[in-house]
Amino acid sequence: MQESDVESIHQQTVENFNKVRSHWAYLCKPLVKEDYVLQTAAGASPPKWHMAHTTWFFEQFILNNYFRGYQVYHPDYHFLFNSYYNSAGDFIDRHVRGMISRPTIDEVNSYRAYVDEHMNSLLNQLDDHPFEEIHPLLQLGINHEQQHQELFLMDIKNIFYQNPIRPVYQEIDYSHSQPVPFDWIESEAGMITIGYNGDGFCYDNEQPAHKTYIHACKMANRLILNGEYLEFMEAGGYTDSRYWLSDGWDTINQNNWQAPLYWDKTEADWEIFTLGGTRKLNENEPVCHLSYYEADAFARWKGVRLPTEFEWERYAANSKIEGNFMDNGGYHPKTPMQNGSQVLHLFGDLWEWTQSPYSGYPGYESLADGVGEYNGKFMCNQFVLRGGCCATPKNHIRKTYRNFYYPHDRWAFTGLRLAKNIK
Amino acid sequence: MQESDVESIHQQTVENFNKVRSHWAYLCKPLVKEDYVLQTAAGASPPKWHMAHTTWFFEQFILNNYFRGYQVYHPDYHFLFNSYYNSAGDFIDRHVRGMISRPTIDEVNSYRAYVDEHMNSLLNQLDDHPFEEIHPLLQLGINHEQQHQELFLMDIKNIFYQNPIRPVYQEIDYSHSQPVPFDWIESEAGMITIGYNGDGFCYDNEQPAHKTYIHACKMANRLILNGEYLEFMEAGGYTDSRYWLSDGWDTINQNNWQAPLYWDKTEADWEIFTLGGTRKLNENEPVCHLSYYEADAFARWKGVRLPTEFEWERYAANSKIEGNFMDNGGYHPKTPMQNGSQVLHLFGDLWEWTQSPYSGYPGYESLADGVGEYNGKFMCNQFVLRGGCCATPKNHIRKTYRNFYYPHDRWAFTGLRLAKNIK
Amino acid sequence: MQESDVESIHQQTVENFNKVRSHWAYLCKPLVKEDYVLQTAAGASPPKWHMAHTTWFFEQFILNNYFRGYQVYHPDYHFLFNSYYNSAGDFIDRHVRGMISRPTIDEVNSYRAYVDEHMNSLLNQLDDHPFEEIHPLLQLGINHEQQHQELFLMDIKNIFYQNPIRPVYQEIDYSHSQPVPFDWIESEAGMITIGYNGDGFCYDNEQPAHKTYIHACKMANRLILNGEYLEFMEAGGYTDSRYWLSDGWDTINQNNWQAPLYWDKTEADWEIFTLGGTRKLNENEPVCHLSYYEADAFARWKGVRLPTEFEWERYAANSKIEGNFMDNGGYHPKTPMQNGSQVLHLFGDLWEWTQSPYSGYPGYESLADGVGEYNGKFMCNQFVLRGGCCATPKNHIRKTYRNFYYPHDRWAFTGLRLAKNIK
Amino acid sequence: MQESDVESIHQQTVENFNKVRSHWAYLCKPLVKEDYVLQTAAGASPPKWHMAHTTWFFEQFILNNYFRGYQVYHPDYHFLFNSYYNSAGDFIDRHVRGMISRPTIDEVNSYRAYVDEHMNSLLNQLDDHPFEEIHPLLQLGINHEQQHQELFLMDIKNIFYQNPIRPVYQEIDYSHSQPVPFDWIESEAGMITIGYNGDGFCYDNEQPAHKTYIHACKMANRLILNGEYLEFMEAGGYTDSRYWLSDGWDTINQNNWQAPLYWDKTEADWEIFTLGGTRKLNENEPVCHLSYYEADAFARWKGVRLPTEFEWERYAANSKIEGNFMDNGGYHPKTPMQNGSQVLHLFGDLWEWTQSPYSGYPGYESLADGVGEYNGKFMCNQFVLRGGCCATPKNHIRKTYRNFYYPHDRWAFTGLRLAKNIK
Repeated sequence: MQESDVESIHQQTVENFNKVRSHWAYLCKPLVKEDYVLQTAAGASPPKWHMAHTTWFFEQFILNNYFRGYQVYHPDYHFLFNSYYNSAGDFIDRHVRGMISRPTIDEVNSYRAYVDEHMNSLLNQLDDHPFEEIHPLLQLGINHEQQHQELFLMDIKNIFYQNPIRPVYQEIDYSHSQPVPFDWIESEAGMITIGYNGDGFCYDNEQPAHKTYIHACKMANRLILNGEYLEFMEAGGYTDSRYWLSDGWDTINQNNWQAPLYWDKTEADWEIFTLGGTRKLNENEPVCHLSYYEADAFARWKGVRLPTEFEWERYAANSKIEGNFMDNGGYHPKTPMQNGSQVLHLFGDLWEWTQSPYSGYPGYESLADGVGEYNGKFMCNQFVLRGGCCATPKNHIRKTYRNFYYPHDRWAFTGLRLAKNIK
Repeated sequence: MQESDVESIHQQTVENFNKVRSHWAYLCKPLVKEDYVLQTAAGASPPKWHMAHTTWFFEQFILNNYFRGYQVYHPDYHFLFNSYYNSAGDFIDRHVRGMISRPTIDEVNSYRAYVDEHMNSLLNQLDDHPFEEIHPLLQLGINHEQQHQELFLMDIKNIFYQNPIRPVYQEIDYSHSQPVPFDWIESEAGMITIGYNGDGFCYDNEQPAHKTYIHACKMANRLILNGEYLEFMEAGGYTDSRYWLSDGWDTINQNNWQAPLYWDKTEADWEIFTLGGTRKLNENEPVCHLSYYEADAFARWKGVRLPTEFEWERYAANSKIEGNFMDNGGYHPKTPMQNGSQVLHLFGDLWEWTQSPYSGYPGYESLADGVGEYNGKFMCNQFVLRGGCCATPKNHIRKTYRNFYYPHDRWAFTGLRLAKNIK
Repeated sequence: MQESDVESIHQQTVENFNKVRSHWAYLCKPLVKEDYVLQTAAGASPPKWHMAHTTWFFEQFILNNYFRGYQVYHPDYHFLFNSYYNSAGDFIDRHVRGMISRPTIDEVNSYRAYVDEHMNSLLNQLDDHPFEEIHPLLQLGINHEQQHQELFLMDIKNIFYQNPIRPVYQEIDYSHSQPVPFDWIESEAGMITIGYNGDGFCYDNEQPAHKTYIHACKMANRLILNGEYLEFMEAGGYTDSRYWLSDGWDTINQNNWQAPLYWDKTEADWEIFTLGGTRKLNENEPVCHLSYYEADAFARWKGVRLPTEFEWERYAANSKIEGNFMDNGGYHPKTPMQNGSQVLHLFGDLWEWTQSPYSGYPGYESLADGVGEYNGKFMCNQFVLRGGCCATPKNHIRKTYRNFYYPHDRWAFTGLRLAKNIK
Repeated sequence: MQESDVESIHQQTVENFNKVRSHWAYLCKPLVKEDYVLQTAAGASPPKWHMAHTTWFFEQFILNNYFRGYQVYHPDYHFLFNSYYNSAGDFIDRHVRGMISRPTIDEVNSYRAYVDEHMNSLLNQLDDHPFEEIHPLLQLGINHEQQHQELFLMDIKNIFYQNPIRPVYQEIDYSHSQPVPFDWIESEAGMITIGYNGDGFCYDNEQPAHKTYIHACKMANRLILNGEYLEFMEAGGYTDSRYWLSDGWDTINQNNWQAPLYWDKTEADWEIFTLGGTRKLNENEPVCHLSYYEADAFARWKGVRLPTEFEWERYAANSKIEGNFMDNGGYHPKTPMQNGSQVLHLFGDLWEWTQSPYSGYPGYESLADGVGEYNGKFMCNQFVLRGGCCATPKNHIRKTYRNFYYPHDRWAFTGLRLAKNIK
């Protein structure tokens, strides 16, 4: 790389760091102090914890290693805000993160300011280490923080839904037009390359880029809509075991699920809870907050299936990354609108469940050391989701990006696209 | 009653109402907003909830019935802050009280101010109802609020203990002198009267006053001390089933209890967590935060037993109500000091477990309506404790006062006094 | 005692020993080998285990101590068939007793024969020990075995009920006549003596006999009938929290109880499962298989209460022990028939819940050593039941006999008698 | 197909049917009646249930449809012995299968004889249906029964292990010689065909045969041995989170796993429980009864990984199906012996965990109707295992055979083979 390129990348990355770090101010505007403490779902964390944990990441992996003479902000924070990085030492049990009132959000914000100041100071004067050495960790930290910003939105939605008075996070523009009619888009069998092989940042789980053989299939031109999902419900979908994976059938019965998460039946109608508050179900919006089990059952009911992540990636390779993202006024999925017969709206709005279990690619190697725990240790019992959602920052998404959740998880902004075999 | 007496009682009660209601300001001084949300133990509630629930009591049982044209402060608060009063309608599940960030503590304080204002307005101008009609409910509400102030102290101690950084609630004076030597005080068999038959306020469970026959026994002159309890622990008390009730043995093994609550073993020593923070165990202080099972096991190890509540009440009848109460600078039990050979220090410091299961007295009748759920519905699976504690307001206690907890409960300020049979 | 008396008691006790021991042959006639293994309820044990455990009792407490050179039948049986006698060593977890297929029932019967032979041999030739020394343990063992015979009947009923094909244990004569009309029988306040002070056998929990003061009350002349309980159910008793203890309300809702155990609603009618199979509910039979919570709720609905065990014992003191016991062709409660206006049918048919928590009497001392665990360690969280039932051998019952179950237990033959205060 | 071929296949299949059906007599020889009832592990079933359920399969899917005028043996058996075939109607909860003492094993054997008789009668005189129509269901039923015979051996091992007296199922020949040294066998990248495309029987999950692209890799020449696994344990493998999947780490800690299932530490040594009883651990035998988590953790500790099922199938394609199977005197894994440098012992002994999550092959379609629930509904949260084990009948195994268990399952005869990438 040219030195001037390094310079420019250095500058851009620092800008991006500060932009992402300061985005919390916007995200937290609707919050009161009491909101920061709560943890209402398995897999969720208190808002305060997200903000401290992402800060700890920079302290632990960058400042402690590269800032000469760095003093940690507080000796207990490592224990409190470390997460699954078992190799980095002991940490508080995930399920009691919501039992900690102190440090307060004011103290967490002081911690954030302290780390930001030292990070900027370090990045402006890299005496001991070339920028190239820090750059990968910095990129990882920025992307990690963006992930937690999306988790924050998922979690605060859950926190507000738990509350019988159902607070509103922010006003949302729900305007929409007619949805694009459902259609199938065909593609042929062949060898393709899967995974990231560009120059920019990607997660370890997107690599190595590798060849794979893919069979012919058809893919739906858009996500399934609330109205279509209602037909499944009204046809008795939740009470007919034939459509369900065995584990799925157990899950819906044990939890008494009869609709997606955040749907409530009133006497007259279905209502859904959104970050903009409770509203009447709009049948033209994509169905959201489904578990894998529900997405899969819907597909079986239709006599088809979910796509594999490889099928999805092939279609995505020919699409532009554009859509309804967090920074495009997202926060709620939009009605999929017509924009040309071939075009598939693959990005933004909702994470799309694929039928691919989350595994390492052929030749996959975890990152070394603590940060290596990032992705590899979750390659079990989860499914891959693709495309980002209305709570994802647009510049966080790639065509090769692999998200993953347990098949019973529903608090993410998850949706459903169909695929089918060609006989 | 003379009219002037009524007048005077009226005035005193209003004063007491305002004094108790405003005491929260003192209690909450050490808190930050994030503290108000948490619920860390089964049986505990968030600070915010205590403050709103006691307010709801006055709204529900007094203002709604006696204040003409009263508008409830907020239509959802009944659902949120109602508690075990099943007959008063639906309410939020006890175990998710800690999942509610809003209404905020500021809003709860506004609610409190609104209800206080209407209460004072009502009490100053009782057009439609004589004071005598409202007085019993008012007394009940005041005492109910005092109970929740004690619960608040118990709960905040638990909240702070859960936090690995162990915040301090307030500075406590731990100074003490030499403890009184252990001794037995004997009393003879005979008929006695149990229960409240005075003119003042008492709970329904203290009535009817009734005759009972009591056998001769000996009672310990003071509570058991930490040092004495340590001997039990060091003698293998927690690993020898012979000393334990069957349910107690299951409980200590399922929960892996090896010491009272809030005791932690460091490499060198035992530490205890107090409202004043963590400190080295003082062997001369009364042992605190015991379950009934532990109190009972200690007594069996000593070859004796716990007193019945009737034995306790007989000794109390001849004692003055004085001791280390919340408003006497309590918050932590004190070393029992010598003050005369006969004298038993029965009040304050710690609730004393008795071997009496919590039941209704002969002829007991629940109060009518909603408030009737107050005590009677808990007369099952609990044991009576007597005497008040360092977190109880002194004017809340009576010689006939019956507190009750489940035998596995340990987060109250509970202690242990021995008794024995005379053969 | 005269030597000839000792001789006669000796002979009678040995006869009784052999009679009780051999009664299993009758009890087990309806069983197949597969039945002996199962444990279907918390608190229940497999039939095989009852038969081996009662045998172990004689081996452990008598043969091991008094039979010179006794060889235990099998070294593992102590571990397998010991029970709550923690002080007698380790034992298999209660809840996995039903996971043990071997030793088989044939082997258990060999074990029984071996112990019986040695017991008879010992009892016929007491070289080293006077009979008086062994007599108390022998009596305890016989009574212990009778208790397990009743438990066996409770457990096999539960085992058969769990099975969708609902096997029949034995034919039962359900003939009956008109029930006695409900009436109240009054008695006055006064000092009475409670507990056993005769010469025969009693359990430690019936002693010491002691004076107590008892208040005036009224007692129902008979048990509550199925038809009367149905009225409570049809009046919404199971859905109105006002009638329930707090723990009871939680229990019925968590377990979704809407009727007593063994009641099933068919389209047309209520059916009950009995040891004689499934049959239509007879409204004139006493209601059976109630928890304490249900008995208490019924009484509250009626505006009255359950009797105390002392009230019960006073009425029993003037009654003859006669009724529908196991050896009188019992196994199912009978319709209470008219036999004189004063007479209360207190014995047999059903164990009667009292409102008395199970505690030690004033001056109570546990037996020494292992057998001391017999009763004292359960004096917590249980309620006293009185009078025996249709599965109890008649000669096992005394007027002072105290049975005890947890308030949520329903698999015993439990019934409900009302009492009320006199104002 | 030629008519004579059909004839011959018909005859062979009937022979095979009768052979497999009658094999239970051999399997059950060591059992007593009490053994047939027990269900000791999640996922396990009582022996009796296996024998009745496999019989029900023929009744439900063949006799009911093809035997004119067939009368089911007993109307309740459908409810009792149906399993996951939700579409075939209601059935008893899986976890209470062990609560049913009746029908007895004698009755189950009568049921078996009745169905066998009718099956033979049907197969000998196929008036209404050509054999080709019944053949696929018959094959499925036979293979289904073989699977349950293996499950029976897994379950009875668990039943006997739960019993503190540790019964022996049958004598086993544990003789062995020196193990083959560990080695890596390399293979190149390329397109291969996966799945079954022969004329015989296979399960739906082995189809369609399809092309896939496979990367170069190395495969271990044999399974990992007890001695090698012990090194992992002694190196602290169970206490170092770095080696574990996140779900695996939770699993071993929640269950307190510190060794494979059936391993017990005595003071001197490790013992393992086998179908031949308890014996000292042989370091040269393959390590057995591992969860996927443990297999995966061992591989990570070694710096390598588990094979994919496709890698495994490619090696298997060039190997003969021979090994230590149930009908070759199996029941316990043998030391892998030298038989040529290239040769990999892929079949028999132990099911080999692969890193492949259990999914449908491209183009996979479930069988229609009830039998369609056979495999497809389990394609979630499980991993594929290959090669059969010492409890598998040899003629049940194919090179394309896909078994599957949850990653936490350990009661199957599971083992561990390593693979690694070529960089």
